[in-house]
Order: sequence, then C-alpha cells, then structure tokens
Amino acid sequence: MQHMRPGVEPFTTRTPRVVAARRLQRRRDRTEARRFLAEGPQAVREALAEGAVAELFTTADAAQRYADLIAAADDAGARISPVAEDALAALAETVQPQGLVAVCEFVDVPLAEALAKRPRLVAVLADIRDPGNAGTILRTADAAGADVVVFAGNAVDPYNGKCVRATAGSLFHVDVVRADDPFVVVEQLRDAGLTVYAADAYGAQDLDHVSCAGPTAWLFGSEAHGLPPELADAADARVRVPIYGGAESLNLAAAAAVCLYSCARAQRMEGTSR
Amino acid sequence: MQHMRPGVEPFTTRTPRVVAARRLQRRRDRTEARRFLAEGPQAVREALAEGAVAELFTTADAAQRYADLIAAADDAGARISPVAEDALAALAETVQPQGLVAVCEFVDVPLAEALAKRPRLVAVLADIRDPGNAGTILRTADAAGADVVVFAGNAVDPYNGKCVRATAGSLFHVDVVRADDPFVVVEQLRDAGLTVYAADAYGAQDLDHVSCAGPTAWLFGSEAHGLPPELADAADARVRVPIYGGAESLNLAAAAAVCLYSCARAQRMEGTSR
Repeated sequence: MQHMRPGVEPFTTRTPRVVAARRLQRRRDRTEARRFLAEGPQAVREALAEGAVAELFTTADAAQRYADLIAAADDAGARISPVAEDALAALAETVQPQGLVAVCEFVDVPLAEALAKRPRLVAVLADIRDPGNAGTILRTADAAGADVVVFAGNAVDPYNGKCVRATAGSLFHVDVVRADDPFVVVEQLRDAGLTVYAADAYGAQDLDHVSCAGPTAWLFGSEAHGLPPELADAADARVRVPIYGGAESLNLAAAAAVCLYSCARAQRMEGTSR
Repeated sequence: MQHMRPGVEPFTTRTPRVVAARRLQRRRDRTEARRFLAEGPQAVREALAEGAVAELFTTADAAQRYADLIAAADDAGARISPVAEDALAALAETVQPQGLVAVCEFVDVPLAEALAKRPRLVAVLADIRDPGNAGTILRTADAAGADVVVFAGNAVDPYNGKCVRATAGSLFHVDVVRADDPFVVVEQLRDAGLTVYAADAYGAQDLDHVSCAGPTAWLFGSEAHGLPPELADAADARVRVPIYGGAESLNLAAAAAVCLYSCARAQRMEGTSR
C-alpha cells in the first residue's frame, strides 16, 4: 500500500493535491468539484461506511494510530495521501483534527429518491443560516431516528466545514437533500403522505396535543426570523413547544430536539410499522 | 430625571464609572463586586423585573427608543448613566447591544433557600465549562418550567457575559445556585425529596422508561467528558436519551432539552400539584 511504502515524502502545503483539497474550504469550489472535506477519525469512519471517501490525507502519526481506517480507505479504493503535519493543519479547520482529513463526494440525494423509501420522520431546515445550528439539528434528527434532512431555500451549505463538524458524523447517516424552493418541498412531502408541521414559537397548536405517530415532517426556520409566515401557513399546522416557565422562547436547536423526540417517541409507542 | 436633563455630557470610555463597569467583564472583578453586566433591552427588562439593576448605561438613542425601560430603572432606584456610543460599545461584548448595558447585582441564592420553595424540576450543571452551553441549558430549563438551576463544581461562572447572553433573560427567572461540591448538592436534593437522575449517554435506564412525574433533579455533565462516574453513581439512576438512528450521541444541550421536557410533560400529564 502506498502509504506504507518507506521513503515516500509526505505532501507539503505546496503539493498540488493539498492545494486543490484546501480549495474545498470554499463553497464555490465545493460546488464545482461536488466534493467536501471531513476531518477527524469519527467523520472519516462514517464517511467510509457511506462509501464517500475519495482521498484520505494522513500524517505519519495518524497512519499508525488509525491503521484500521487507512486500511479500510485503501480497500475502498480511496487515494491515501501522506502529508506533513503543517499540511494537515492547513487542510483542517479545527486545531485537533487528529491527523486525518478526507476529501468526500457529495452525499445528497434528490427529495424524490429519499421519499421513495417512505421515511417516517423528516426535518426540513428552511433558511437556517448558522452552520453550527444546522449541523446540530441534523445530528439530533439522526439521533431521533429521522430518515431525511432537507436543506431548503437559503439554508447553509450542508458541506460547510462547521456544519459537517456539528453533525458529528450524522451527515453520512441520513438522506441529505438540498432543495431550492421550500414550498415545493412541502408539497412533495404531503404528496408522499407525510403530515407537515411548522415549528413556530407562536403556533396555535401545542406540541403535546398534536399527533405525530404517523409519518411526519418538521419545518424549522432560522434562529433570527423563524419560518416565513407563508411557509408556516403551507404546513398542516403551526406547532409550538409549550413554554412552562418564564422564558420567552427556546433556542432553535433545543426546540428542534423537543419536537423531533416527541415524534420519535409517539411513533414508537404507537407501534406503527413501515 | 437625570438622563433626560439636557446638557449632561454623556460618559466616555475614560469616565471612572465606565472604567469600573468594564472591569466586570472579568470574573475576578465580578466576584469581588458581586455584580455583573447584562446587555440589550431583553436582559435589562428581565433584570429590572427581578430588581437586580444597580446602574443602567444608555446611549441617547436608546434612551429614546427604550424610554419605558429607562423610566422603570429610574423608578426602581437604579442609577441612569448616559454614555457615548463608543463607551457603550466598550461595555458591551456583542456588536449590537442596542444601546443598553446594565450593571446587575448577583442573583444567586443558597441551595437551601431554593429548596425551601419545594421545586419540582431542578437542573444541575456539573463542571459544564462552556458558557454558551450552560446558558442555553438554563434557558431550556426555564422554558420547561424548572425552578432551580445549580452551577456546581467547576461549572462556568453563571455571570460570564456569554453565559448571560445565552440565557436570553432566563438567568433572572429561575433560582440560580452556585455550589462547590456536586456530591453535597445531590445529597441536599435527595433530602428535599427529589429523585435525582444523571443524564448519561451510556446510562442503563432509557428516558422513556423512567418516571419523572414527581419532583425531579437532572445532573448534566460537561460536553467533553460527561458526568464523573462517581457523581453519576451518586444519582438514583443513570438515564440515557434513546438513540433511534445512527448518531453516536446527542449534543449536551439537545440531550438536556429532551430530558427536561420529558419531565415537564410527565409532571403535567399526571396532574401532580405542589
């Protein structure tokens, strides 16, 4: 295996492959290449399981420490590229990427393809601009057993480095969908038999009083502005998480966690099957 | 009222009152003065409702825009200090404090005092170091109707500016407690008749299968390390939020939201009363 061969000089920050990979830190270049970066052993492991790794940059240290991952990447046909510490640091956006950065193929699928699998729980991120929030909600949706997460309208790029990191590997577990028009998404979801709820701090329905035991999609809007009123109106109901104390509202990620888990629990308690 | 008096020169960054208030951005100085800073109209409103405002710095613009708050602060006996834009910017830690920064008295109370009110839902932040996480969980706890939030052990200073902002005013709604020894906290909670659950990703009990309809306290540990095992063992049970999908875990604030709301719902559905 190439990475084990003694005498191979590790790539530097100036090596063309490293220079090219670094460009993937920019959205424009990601979109063009349909590739993105994932860093650290956890993300690399999940990306490998999804068959998404095209190239794996590794320091000499990491190649020893994560020999299993390097071998798996090699078996999967990924290119293994040994890099110097400073080149790895330049590829990574965090201070401790633990010596591994992977170039991954985009994993998103068309909504129709995701809906053909008859998902029971879907999260739609409409115009959510903050990558940390978006990634955290995707991670929470995965934990709650959601099958599909849609980045709709002006939502952040799911392949933004901060978003990828916030998903903690969940980006590779769910069907990720990118869709320009959230209204079309709502229509498609409803056509596929899902009940669509708009999470809305001022919604008329209380979460504790709506049924989400059946196939359900949740629309979440931006932290700053919430959902556009017309989009919330397009849903089957506007649903609020009840506020029992003095807080004016919940933050977005917390509200999403409560909504998604409420459904996950209802779906399991009612013993519905696919 | 002093702030309405024409001809009063607004304070500058060098005015001793501004210099003194700025020092409250540092923990050491906050601890000494037992005062902290809260910025923006929402926090100021909540602080006023709690009677916590000692001094209110306001730009000329904000004094007009938030005339009601200025009047309320004046009525409450707070000192109103007109400041120049740059002095306000120096007092604030955010870029858009909307012209208001208040010096507030510490609001924390001893645990015994908080427990005397027979709380039904309590959150304990054990060694949570990230101020954004701690503040967000406090906000979520308030939304879920929690009465008490304990900052225990090496938890972040609740008066840290980032923590205060993340609470979105909820710092002034719940009984905030600071306690050095989380083990003593657990003992006091149990003596007060609360069931104590340790939120633990690897807990033996599933959240869906524990009862929290009665008075309940939740222990939350740091994002990086979770709860110290001995502390989790000191609880009545270690409880995990079930992971239905591929995610390895939930992030701390999401897990806390699910745990706290699960209890809030159970307490209301069972119709228990104080």
